[in-house]
Amino acid sequence: MEITTPAHQSDHYFSDEERDAVYKSIYLRRDVRGQFKPDPIPDDVLARIIKAAHHAPSVGFMQPWNFLLIKNAQTKKKIHDIFLNANDEAADMFDSEQGEIYRQLKLEGILESPLNMVITCDRDLAGPVVVGRTHDKSMDLFSSVCAIQNLWLAARAEGVGVGWVSIFNKKALKQALKLPTSVTPVGYLCIGYVDHFYAKPELQAAGWRDRLPVEDLICFDEWGNTDNTEHKGLIEALSKPAE
Amino acid sequence: MEITTPAHQSDHYFSDEERDAVYKSIYLRRDVRGQFKPDPIPDDVLARIIKAAHHAPSVGFMQPWNFLLIKNAQTKKKIHDIFLNANDEAADMFDSEQGEIYRQLKLEGILESPLNMVITCDRDLAGPVVVGRTHDKSMDLFSSVCAIQNLWLAARAEGVGVGWVSIFNKKALKQALKLPTSVTPVGYLCIGYVDHFYAKPELQAAGWRDRLPVEDLICFDEWGNTDNTEHKGLIEALSKPAE
Repeated sequence: MEITTPAHQSDHYFSDEERDAVYKSIYLRRDVRGQFKPDPIPDDVLARIIKAAHHAPSVGFMQPWNFLLIKNAQTKKKIHDIFLNANDEAADMFDSEQGEIYRQLKLEGILESPLNMVITCDRDLAGPVVVGRTHDKSMDLFSSVCAIQNLWLAARAEGVGVGWVSIFNKKALKQALKLPTSVTPVGYLCIGYVDHFYAKPELQAAGWRDRLPVEDLICFDEWGNTDNTEHKGLIEALSKPAE
Repeated sequence: MEITTPAHQSDHYFSDEERDAVYKSIYLRRDVRGQFKPDPIPDDVLARIIKAAHHAPSVGFMQPWNFLLIKNAQTKKKIHDIFLNANDEAADMFDSEQGEIYRQLKLEGILESPLNMVITCDRDLAGPVVVGRTHDKSMDLFSSVCAIQNLWLAARAEGVGVGWVSIFNKKALKQALKLPTSVTPVGYLCIGYVDHFYAKPELQAAGWRDRLPVEDLICFDEWGNTDNTEHKGLIEALSKPAE
């Protein structure tokens, strides 16, 4: 078999305005836990954000994801109970002062958001050998994560809030959703229109952790080499405020 | 400690044009393996795409990533050799017909791209207990993946190509980059301006795998429930061509 050269993109360029819009979605995206409004998401909007997820990169073009949509109040209640159990366990893992703050954090909007969505990864979808996954078995999970991030940014551009809930006993979650053994729930998302988006990530605003200065996270050619003599321009550009 | 309510975003809305630009970056993003031009990426452009990565969501606001920039020809050569070894092993894993096609696939641009970048995850950065990672230890790796996807989309909007290479013996890669035990190389990226972007993913164009119809990937409330009687509008919207 001969591989033919594929066609090129004709609409190649982004204007400055288009480029800035991409950055706007990246900077204004928030992990939304509250502020959900009950308004349903119109089918065309929901279809667009699901298609954005489906156009994520995937290892070996595997597209290992499914989209499990949850609107049923009983199902949500069951999932919320699984969250509550895990969240109690989580709170006890912190020392008493941190644990006290932890218990005040709002970490999910399972019941309030009009739509929950599970983005899964079928580990067996493409057989045992997948291009690009031969040496890192997690690459298919990472593909599903890229789908989530696409969905998250698309949703923000649509004015729709998304929160990723990860505090579950995975076995209980799989059982509640009847997922087969080979299917992993990669992200449990709460989705809906919101009253507002916060200006800063909530954990940052709550003083839990600060944003790290990005210029401190750069090294060159090998770990620990932060000699930036030849990269002064880059470090200077990184040190400028982002927005 | 009392948690104060953080400020809201004032610049809340996206125009249709801004929204469409976000989708444009999602649809035109490609995994680039060839077509790299040697032109260096200006500091301000590189700083913007690194900052986009740094504004990814992260579990417990952990920001577990570092950005290891590789321009040194000797280092690239060493990494390329590690790829070649792994790629030979990979080719042997396929049956003879698939193996023959596999060997024709161009899967990386390590030497040709002007910049390689490793996005890492420091598993120990925030101590043993992290908000949101108590029940899924992979959440910090997933945060680094979100950073990669942000970078990928930002780069596309800047006209910069990015390819993710995952065919490495991880131990050899860590050793070559002198990564400490706690630091995982999540994504090895080849970055640079390109002659053109392909209209379709290369594996799709090569006939390796087709894009799955997204409407077949939806289920409701539990796995296997594809009864869409109440969701006909969504399925119809999903079935329309994406672009």
